[in-house]
Amino acid sequence: MSLLAQTLSSIEPPDENAAAAVAARLDSLTKPRGSLGYLEEIAQRYAAVRGDPEAKLGEREILVFVADHGVVEQGVSAYPKQVTVEMLRNLARGGAAISVLARRLGLRLELVDVGVEHDTRAEGLPGIVYRRIGAGTRNFAREPAMTPEQARAALEVGIELARGAAARGATLLGIGEMGIGNSTAAAAVLAAATGIAPQLLAGHGAGIDEEGRRRKVAVIREALYLHRAALRDALGILAAVGGFEIGAMAGACLGAAAARIALVVDGFIATAGAALAEKLSPGLCARLFFAHRSADGGHQLVLDHLGAGRPILELGMRLGEGTGAALAMTVIDCALTLLNQMATFSGAGVSERIGPS
Amino acid sequence: MSLLAQTLSSIEPPDENAAAAVAARLDSLTKPRGSLGYLEEIAQRYAAVRGDPEAKLGEREILVFVADHGVVEQGVSAYPKQVTVEMLRNLARGGAAISVLARRLGLRLELVDVGVEHDTRAEGLPGIVYRRIGAGTRNFAREPAMTPEQARAALEVGIELARGAAARGATLLGIGEMGIGNSTAAAAVLAAATGIAPQLLAGHGAGIDEEGRRRKVAVIREALYLHRAALRDALGILAAVGGFEIGAMAGACLGAAAARIALVVDGFIATAGAALAEKLSPGLCARLFFAHRSADGGHQLVLDHLGAGRPILELGMRLGEGTGAALAMTVIDCALTLLNQMATFSGAGVSERIGPS
Repeated sequence: MSLLAQTLSSIEPPDENAAAAVAARLDSLTKPRGSLGYLEEIAQRYAAVRGDPEAKLGEREILVFVADHGVVEQGVSAYPKQVTVEMLRNLARGGAAISVLARRLGLRLELVDVGVEHDTRAEGLPGIVYRRIGAGTRNFAREPAMTPEQARAALEVGIELARGAAARGATLLGIGEMGIGNSTAAAAVLAAATGIAPQLLAGHGAGIDEEGRRRKVAVIREALYLHRAALRDALGILAAVGGFEIGAMAGACLGAAAARIALVVDGFIATAGAALAEKLSPGLCARLFFAHRSADGGHQLVLDHLGAGRPILELGMRLGEGTGAALAMTVIDCALTLLNQMATFSGAGVSERIGPS
Repeated sequence: MSLLAQTLSSIEPPDENAAAAVAARLDSLTKPRGSLGYLEEIAQRYAAVRGDPEAKLGEREILVFVADHGVVEQGVSAYPKQVTVEMLRNLARGGAAISVLARRLGLRLELVDVGVEHDTRAEGLPGIVYRRIGAGTRNFAREPAMTPEQARAALEVGIELARGAAARGATLLGIGEMGIGNSTAAAAVLAAATGIAPQLLAGHGAGIDEEGRRRKVAVIREALYLHRAALRDALGILAAVGGFEIGAMAGACLGAAAARIALVVDGFIATAGAALAEKLSPGLCARLFFAHRSADGGHQLVLDHLGAGRPILELGMRLGEGTGAALAMTVIDCALTLLNQMATFSGAGVSERIGPS
């Protein structure tokens, strides 16, 4: 049995008893009933995913998957392709946005090269995990982005890394990405996975102008036609128009669910990974946390399609790297800390409400 | 010259040069231009308020003002009046929601009794600052909530505490409150200060039912008529229908502006303080941060009226105590840390975008 099949078969349903125990405890705490709003839903979802009625928080970790994209040849990105490897170095040296946030918020950061064009293994960059599936994808405007074997490998790298995080004690895992061109791949994956039209999904990415955005939409439309026979399932979509980091993020969603740890999906591109995971394991998205409503692309349309409900934050961010996940993980952390550290009405000698509630 | 007059006259306009310096630095950092979204606006506003082009973050502190309200006699609250003093004890012992969040997020917490009915000074509660203006307000359904002298004293307590925080090194200050009945006082103050109808402002507070909410609206309407001659200015409104903690929060907004430290307004009730501060110093709200859109009352209507723009978070919270401010202060902290710790394109050797931006 392959790691993928094994993982899919080991995903158990969320534990609704654990969620109910958390709901009862929330109502015993010294606050008006329901007054923590969405934080109360967060604590319940976390307990259900973990199967832990106490909803204890363990380690917090972010996985950032970095890869290159052949489709950049089509002029769909505002930045040149070498920015991917340049940003990998910047991430390794602690200068990228997620490096700063992880330090400030006390999150462990795992940087994973899953297929940057330029191989940096000889450079001795600190803290990079090399799980290279190839030297970037091929240009999906002309040929499949990757082979079926690479698509499966990308998923399995994500599964393994999520398992590794769980083994290190993580109970809350964020996923993010970096890769020039990957908002085009993400929009193509999401169009194929959800049926939403490319022109509603493709945004300005890292800042391409309106002409570039129209080019992006055209590239996606044509690719969906070119690869139409391959788009029947998640692996087919990933191989045809995906990216190594998108596959790895899909795998991380599955691996986290199998390991019963909570997972926070970053933004638009990470949501493409979640959409593939949902196709492989229907209902999965209902147990994920969606960090924020990205300012890029048709993110809310996709969240609605996936039944993901509302994201935790809406800060107009569109940076990727897991930056939205990092901020949202702090909100989740606070929700769990409140649950576990607040006094109860009886314990603190605080009077309950007047009359029926 | 009174402390209030002195404070009002010492408020200088925001420093737009500092904001421009921050905007320029943000564009030099290794991220797509503008991709930090609202975090970029936050950093600029902070710099303008502080008059600090480097937007350095000092200490972070939350002031929680606690007081009682005579209007509780009208049956406008879901909880009995003694919950105020019970919660003061719970706050002192670290069991309240804001106690938990302040510990988790590393915020200094200053708890201020500005007029709880039951005097706890003999109880030896840890960490309470006593600046009692009275043993709760009077019932504003029948008589003014407080004397003109008490209204001024409430404002001046807030000014002094904000100054004290600044003197201790705080550059980012949150304000919150606790007081059974204070959502009724806040809605009355906001109706008087903004002209928005009471039925659009009064919500379910800590959880009163719909019949109770209608009673609340009627009490406010009648009080606005009863005290109509007194509602000409901020001090008149505060004395007629306000609360000691609402006055103190208004004072804290003024004191923070005068001391050039950034201030984060918590939720619906704290916003009533901000609305009074705006009346005393027009334009003040544009330099405050509004933490979140409270689920209580007509909060967004008021934010729009005050020109406060969008709050930082929207988590459906309605707990008060500064809990929304605590979470929002972490977002502000992250915005400033990103500004000051991210690498620049030139420093990190990352290529800039293709063509004009």
